[in-house]
Amino acid sequence: MDPQAIMQIRRNCTRFLNGHYRQTPQQALASLAAYTTPDIDADMYGAGAVITDFERDVAQILGKEAAVFMPSGTMCQQIALRIHAERAGTNRVGFHPLCHLEIHEQQGYQELHHLRGVLIGDPMHLMTLANLQTVAEPLAALLIELPQREIGGQLPAWEDLVALTAYARAHGIALHMDGARLWQCNSFYGHGYEEIAALFDTVYVSFYKDLGGIAGAILAGSADFIARARVWQRRHGGNLVQLYPYVLAAGKGLTEHLARMPAYYDKARSLAAALAALPQISIVPDPPQTNMMHMYLRGDRERLVVAALGIAQETGTWLFPALRPTSLPDLHTLELTVGAATLDLPDAEIADLFRQVFARAE
Amino acid sequence: MDPQAIMQIRRNCTRFLNGHYRQTPQQALASLAAYTTPDIDADMYGAGAVITDFERDVAQILGKEAAVFMPSGTMCQQIALRIHAERAGTNRVGFHPLCHLEIHEQQGYQELHHLRGVLIGDPMHLMTLANLQTVAEPLAALLIELPQREIGGQLPAWEDLVALTAYARAHGIALHMDGARLWQCNSFYGHGYEEIAALFDTVYVSFYKDLGGIAGAILAGSADFIARARVWQRRHGGNLVQLYPYVLAAGKGLTEHLARMPAYYDKARSLAAALAALPQISIVPDPPQTNMMHMYLRGDRERLVVAALGIAQETGTWLFPALRPTSLPDLHTLELTVGAATLDLPDAEIADLFRQVFARAE
Repeated sequence: MDPQAIMQIRRNCTRFLNGHYRQTPQQALASLAAYTTPDIDADMYGAGAVITDFERDVAQILGKEAAVFMPSGTMCQQIALRIHAERAGTNRVGFHPLCHLEIHEQQGYQELHHLRGVLIGDPMHLMTLANLQTVAEPLAALLIELPQREIGGQLPAWEDLVALTAYARAHGIALHMDGARLWQCNSFYGHGYEEIAALFDTVYVSFYKDLGGIAGAILAGSADFIARARVWQRRHGGNLVQLYPYVLAAGKGLTEHLARMPAYYDKARSLAAALAALPQISIVPDPPQTNMMHMYLRGDRERLVVAALGIAQETGTWLFPALRPTSLPDLHTLELTVGAATLDLPDAEIADLFRQVFARAE
Repeated sequence: MDPQAIMQIRRNCTRFLNGHYRQTPQQALASLAAYTTPDIDADMYGAGAVITDFERDVAQILGKEAAVFMPSGTMCQQIALRIHAERAGTNRVGFHPLCHLEIHEQQGYQELHHLRGVLIGDPMHLMTLANLQTVAEPLAALLIELPQREIGGQLPAWEDLVALTAYARAHGIALHMDGARLWQCNSFYGHGYEEIAALFDTVYVSFYKDLGGIAGAILAGSADFIARARVWQRRHGGNLVQLYPYVLAAGKGLTEHLARMPAYYDKARSLAAALAALPQISIVPDPPQTNMMHMYLRGDRERLVVAALGIAQETGTWLFPALRPTSLPDLHTLELTVGAATLDLPDAEIADLFRQVFARAE
């Protein structure tokens, strides 16, 4: 189907399976103007209360001395690993084969920072202590993503995470957390963000995924580490004259969504159970460990998509506009993140809509 | 004086010597929401009409095949020089000693891109053809800033610019324009942006300086060059999931200010003449060649600043909150860019306010 036609169907929908209700730029800017107050001045190259207060608040949530707001997580993480590498005196950094740096950043860590990536473990599973123990050469840093997005938001058991980080620490390996979706982890671990972050030297968190911001990220760590990160931020072209649209949207997102993360998690668990009851659906991980999951759907890909778009047109309920292929021709995946919009759809109704999708696609 | 007190004085002012009227984030976001329309959807990682239409429009203004919007000029320019260097097979790039890359970017071009800078000419003057002819080693690219901000917005005469770029071209040196303030150049040259840009392979322009945007920049050039630049943009962490606040503000700025640049230029010329009549003031360049200039003020620095703040408090007219030192203890500089706010102040009144500043500071 023509992309314009698909976008028009989406525009006419009022209910959405995935994430939060999307706003147009006009709606988002107007709601941001209403959220902020007349006494708030613009930031300037990282200075100004609007940005420094927010950095302090997030540092406190994460139990770190300092934090710096940057335009992107890509920037935060390359910079964190570069500084860890310079401190360690080796440019070798370890991460999972499906790490964001390895698969989504055009090898910026190599091209810009001359770091060498050591891929640890198996793509489809979490990195284990045994995997880490096979690394024979010294590592400057180990990056662990919590939860791990590319495999459905899986999380290591708390004891496994503690063992992995303790081993790294004992071997002089700095620990960096890719916490793009860290906000999702509390319910599973039963530990606060501060306790989870305490296992790491540096932590990156994002604001436009679960928190509904516009863009932007924070890197948190010790005061001297963050001071060095600010130098690299300028080198990257990320010390923007004004970042306030992103900072304000991030603050609004924290206020609106952080307290609701347990509700999103509970919904993910109940919805996954309802969906897994369908013979054409498998859920990874089952049960979900966060408010995200990967659905595996069996059937003809094109027909499934057309069926979902037809249902969107008829019912105003947006399910999915595409499916990602797997190596099996009749098996496809769909990433599902439970947000404010998902909460408004009863589990039984979602399961029924998927039943209709499969029936139409037969 | 306490920075908070200074900010409070500024908040109470209604008239401003420098630039455009400043908006609080709340005002800027609300006016941006009013500027955009409900049918405009958010961009996504560089895709979407809101960003691609704007890139096409600016490419057209500059007479280039393609353009890419990035969060900052720092990113645009390092990337442009990196690509020119890879094409040329040397990492040596030439620029003026006061080039932004050399003095404001923490040597990102060296640290991230392993480029070597060749500083050409004298810091206080424009680069000349004779300067360029002294460079004995091959250069991948030559960066020319039009106008040159750190020396008051000076511009080479058109014939000199043509000769400089022709020499570079004849010697296989790629040409990159730092056009952060290119929008100011039309009146002086009597040539359109497209004609000026035609002397260069790649051009960077900015949107938050003369055009009153929030942040953001564009790099324009050939289609294949810009395609490569997009790869580097992702490596830099500049391919943001959403850039629409910056893009929309840039579009609004072009609409509101571009046609007024000749008026800003005329005002700069008349204002400079009025100010230069004061014995304590010199103007560089005199007369101004764009809508910016550097003022040199003679007197006691601290007393001049206190006097200007006092006048701001009493008259609601904001002159300056600080002066930049020179190597002479009683000589200080002030950068002045004529914008919408300046237009509303009669030249004679500004000159009279400066007369009062000097009288009080005696």
